[in-house]
Amino acid sequence: MNGFIQKLGPLLFALARSRPAGLLIRKVFAHMSFAIPAARLRETSTLLAFHHPRPAYPLHILLVPKREYRSLIELDPGDAAFQRDLFETVQSLVRDLGLEARGYRLIANGGANQDVPILHFHLISESEVQP
Amino acid sequence: MNGFIQKLGPLLFALARSRPAGLLIRKVFAHMSFAIPAARLRETSTLLAFHHPRPAYPLHILLVPKREYRSLIELDPGDAAFQRDLFETVQSLVRDLGLEARGYRLIANGGANQDVPILHFHLISESEVQP
Repeated sequence: MNGFIQKLGPLLFALARSRPAGLLIRKVFAHMSFAIPAARLRETSTLLAFHHPRPAYPLHILLVPKREYRSLIELDPGDAAFQRDLFETVQSLVRDLGLEARGYRLIANGGANQDVPILHFHLISESEVQP
Repeated sequence: MNGFIQKLGPLLFALARSRPAGLLIRKVFAHMSFAIPAARLRETSTLLAFHHPRPAYPLHILLVPKREYRSLIELDPGDAAFQRDLFETVQSLVRDLGLEARGYRLIANGGANQDVPILHFHLISESEVQP
C-alpha cells in the first residue's frame, strides 16, 4: 500500500478522477497523509496544501481537507477547525508568495464543474511572474 | 442617507470600486443592511447573498459578510460564525437552484484580481440553463 502511494506520488490527486480511486484517495488524505510525498507547501491537523501535479495556471495550489468530504455540499458547516486552517493557510500563502501584488483567486468547483471526487480548493494566480 | 442608499439600490455594490465609496459601503453592509433593497436571496446575522447587479455569468450571486473586511487577507480566521454561514448558505443555494447538475464555482478574488474593496464571494454558474 505504501509503496503504491510512494510510486504514484504527486499524481495521486490527478488519478482520483475515477470513483473507486476517489474513495481510496479520500481515505489516504484522511488517514495516511504522511505517505503522500507531493511537494507540500503547508500541512495542518486538518488539511494539506501542495502544488497541483498538473497545473492549469502559472501558480496552482491545491488545499485538501484530511476529513473525507466528497464535495462542497458535504463539507460540515460546523467544521470550524478546517475552515480556520483553510483561511489561515490561504492568507499565509498569499503573504509568502507575494500574491497581493500578483493577484490571486480562491476557487472551489462543484457539481458538474468538479473533476475529482474529493473536496478541494484551488489557490491560483493567472499572472506569469511576480510584478 | 437612507434615500441615497434606496435610490442606488442594487448598484451599491458595483459602485464600491472607489476607495471612499468602498469605506462607506462596508459601513452600510456592517450596520445598515436593512436599507439595502437589492433582491436578497439569503440573509443571516453575518452575511447577505444577492444577485450581482452586473452579472458576468448566467448565474452570478454575491455573498458579502456584514463585518467590515476589505479582503480575504483581512478575514478573521477565527470568525467561525461567518464561515459557517458562508458554507451553509452556499449549500442551501446549490440545492435550491439545482447547481449540482448545472455546475458551479465558489470564488474569492484577491489582490490585483479584486475589483471592489469589500470581501465578497462569488457563487457562479457558467451554464446558461438548468439541464
